[in-house]
Amino acid sequence: MPISMKQSQLFTKTKKESPSDEVSLNAELLIKAGYIEKEMSGVYSYLPLGLRVLNKIENIIRQEMNSIGGQEVLMSSLQESSTWEPTNQWSDDQVDVWFKTKLKNNTELGLAVTHEAAMTKMLKDFVQSYRDLPIYVYQFQTKFRNEVRAKSGIMRTREFVMKDLYSFSKDEAEHTEFYEKAKEAYKNIFKRVGIGHITYLTFASGGMFSKFSHEFQTITGAGEDVIYIDENKGIAINKEVYTDEVINDLELSKDELVEKRAVEVGNIFTLATRFSDALNLKYKTENGDDKSVFMGSYGIGPGRLMGTIVEVLSDGKGIIWPESIAPFKVHLLVLGEDDNTHKEANDIYNILIENNIEVLFDDRHDVNAGEKFADADLIGIPYRVVVSKRSLSDGGYEIKKRIEEGGRIVNKEDLINEFKNV
Amino acid sequence: MPISMKQSQLFTKTKKESPSDEVSLNAELLIKAGYIEKEMSGVYSYLPLGLRVLNKIENIIRQEMNSIGGQEVLMSSLQESSTWEPTNQWSDDQVDVWFKTKLKNNTELGLAVTHEAAMTKMLKDFVQSYRDLPIYVYQFQTKFRNEVRAKSGIMRTREFVMKDLYSFSKDEAEHTEFYEKAKEAYKNIFKRVGIGHITYLTFASGGMFSKFSHEFQTITGAGEDVIYIDENKGIAINKEVYTDEVINDLELSKDELVEKRAVEVGNIFTLATRFSDALNLKYKTENGDDKSVFMGSYGIGPGRLMGTIVEVLSDGKGIIWPESIAPFKVHLLVLGEDDNTHKEANDIYNILIENNIEVLFDDRHDVNAGEKFADADLIGIPYRVVVSKRSLSDGGYEIKKRIEEGGRIVNKEDLINEFKNV
Repeated sequence: MPISMKQSQLFTKTKKESPSDEVSLNAELLIKAGYIEKEMSGVYSYLPLGLRVLNKIENIIRQEMNSIGGQEVLMSSLQESSTWEPTNQWSDDQVDVWFKTKLKNNTELGLAVTHEAAMTKMLKDFVQSYRDLPIYVYQFQTKFRNEVRAKSGIMRTREFVMKDLYSFSKDEAEHTEFYEKAKEAYKNIFKRVGIGHITYLTFASGGMFSKFSHEFQTITGAGEDVIYIDENKGIAINKEVYTDEVINDLELSKDELVEKRAVEVGNIFTLATRFSDALNLKYKTENGDDKSVFMGSYGIGPGRLMGTIVEVLSDGKGIIWPESIAPFKVHLLVLGEDDNTHKEANDIYNILIENNIEVLFDDRHDVNAGEKFADADLIGIPYRVVVSKRSLSDGGYEIKKRIEEGGRIVNKEDLINEFKNV
Repeated sequence: MPISMKQSQLFTKTKKESPSDEVSLNAELLIKAGYIEKEMSGVYSYLPLGLRVLNKIENIIRQEMNSIGGQEVLMSSLQESSTWEPTNQWSDDQVDVWFKTKLKNNTELGLAVTHEAAMTKMLKDFVQSYRDLPIYVYQFQTKFRNEVRAKSGIMRTREFVMKDLYSFSKDEAEHTEFYEKAKEAYKNIFKRVGIGHITYLTFASGGMFSKFSHEFQTITGAGEDVIYIDENKGIAINKEVYTDEVINDLELSKDELVEKRAVEVGNIFTLATRFSDALNLKYKTENGDDKSVFMGSYGIGPGRLMGTIVEVLSDGKGIIWPESIAPFKVHLLVLGEDDNTHKEANDIYNILIENNIEVLFDDRHDVNAGEKFADADLIGIPYRVVVSKRSLSDGGYEIKKRIEEGGRIVNKEDLINEFKNV
């Protein structure tokens, strides 16, 4: 992705009015600031600034998945019934969010809502012996879900990129070892994108084959879930399994648990042998026996994560991006029409680029200071640098963090050192 | 993408047998070597090695699109009829490759086959005045096309990523200037991925608003098109417009033209005001008049490009990747079970990584030399480095290019220098 961009060239513009058809804060701010565009209810496009944020989130997730041995692939959305029938996931009675379509010869196809079955089927081609396991495969792939309602901006959409990883292990012990590593990788992800402090490992319903699954829930009023948090232990229980038995099981105490609304930003799930049994994914053990592969699934939606971050990190003026995923590190503003000031600002722009510092340059003419400041606050880049006649007569450039009220004047050298050191 | 990988960890394996249900060379080789997996006819998944190649092709295209001012976005596949009806592209009579689906409330949606109309509609939000133009927007986005037949491997599929760029200019003169730049960018792309010498700028049917469109056609017997090439001028005419009039127009001579089969690997198209008129994308001129935006479209399918490269760059043993898009630069093979040899190979592996050289390490035990050589030839990485008891006693490591018959022995220092200098 390009290291720099001039705002006069950026084809998107901020909007003064909030969109009339959005009820969620994330959609409102992201649309006003020019990060996303609504195609229809529950379907959004990512504009240049938005795609930069999405890509940065994806790259953080990718690094963490690679670090625990994940191998990246890209599977198809189009799916045949034969893949999903053995696992009882094909009919609309069984999975109620399918988008179905048809080939010219009338064969019904589905648009993948998830990929456990497809991945299991694919692995049959590559898994024969215990020597082939364990295997960890993931992708960033577009899922389609035919949601009845979609009013949460990019936190719940009908079409979205999902990172889904599937683990294929010899037995439960090997699975558990990886499952714990995945937990840590997920914690790293939420920490790195700036919401680690309000994101809780949450015990949720485990389905048929395991007592619990684990969700990562981020505290926000915009969330659809209710969880009970133990602040000291840093864990929580989803309302769906909030019983005395579970509280005891987890050695928690009801008095310590605080009820909060939250959004599920990730989940990890022990699938055991449900899919491998149904699709006959077996391997030969050292003794020559046939055994079903033991599986897990691990999901994160980068778009939902982006929406959640906007919900929890904004103020009355706009978005406040964490530096790790901000579209740019620095928002450089030039004020006034004075030639010398513009020349100075251009110099700073080029020096930032030479020093490998990502910068959006508001080089627009005929836009007054108030509008430029308002746009900068709305867009929410972590550092604002202002070059104006006044800043130059004060000895340099005004630098201000998005989260700070006032700025300070620094000279050229200090400005660059400031960004090199953070 | 990770700089290195051990083949013992890679979950895919090469296959000895060719797939029985493929007639195209690209699908046969890519499946045998473990680059792709067939989901159904015309639908493929990209495995780890294949995704690396696809990503490298995409990155080359991205660089060239950024260099001519393209701004990257990501639009949705799900589309409403209201976007496509004004341009007469919604009904199956008008566009015959739609996959259609339905929302829960029975509203019909389509899966985008292209994005001219959607992009034009989106731009209405951002284009008001002549000052807002020109704008160049592109994406790498999954298209769905309900093809009746799909027998060309990844050269023609029902689901594929496409790079589509759309240009929005004030008038034809501004459009033409960009169109010529785009031509050069496309030529750079084909040169950089290794097929520039057999890819021809080809005059094809221009549709309603322009005499010609331009295709980039790569010579291969696997192509679906027939073109007539003037080798000296480096241009060609598509059979669909091959008439005496066109030959005269282009100042070519029938005697000089050679008939060849070819595949269209890219196309650029003047749309003029067809879409802006239909969807009412207008801007205010300097004089205050309303004028329709003048448009162009520019497409490349990275998957088709990958398939084409395999068709034209292979031999009886397997694929021969150009270095720019190979999954790795070096394929390091260790032969035999001897501990010291494995230790030496591991050292080389680590040194290559330290020197930032992409390497696939065939560290597998219990696989004989013949199989490792055959796999290396099939996978087609540009440089093979062999570490064996014999190579060590000869003074080092055997290095051989994929396209060469014999290798030569080099010592550690020379080996690294070799790769640093190419």
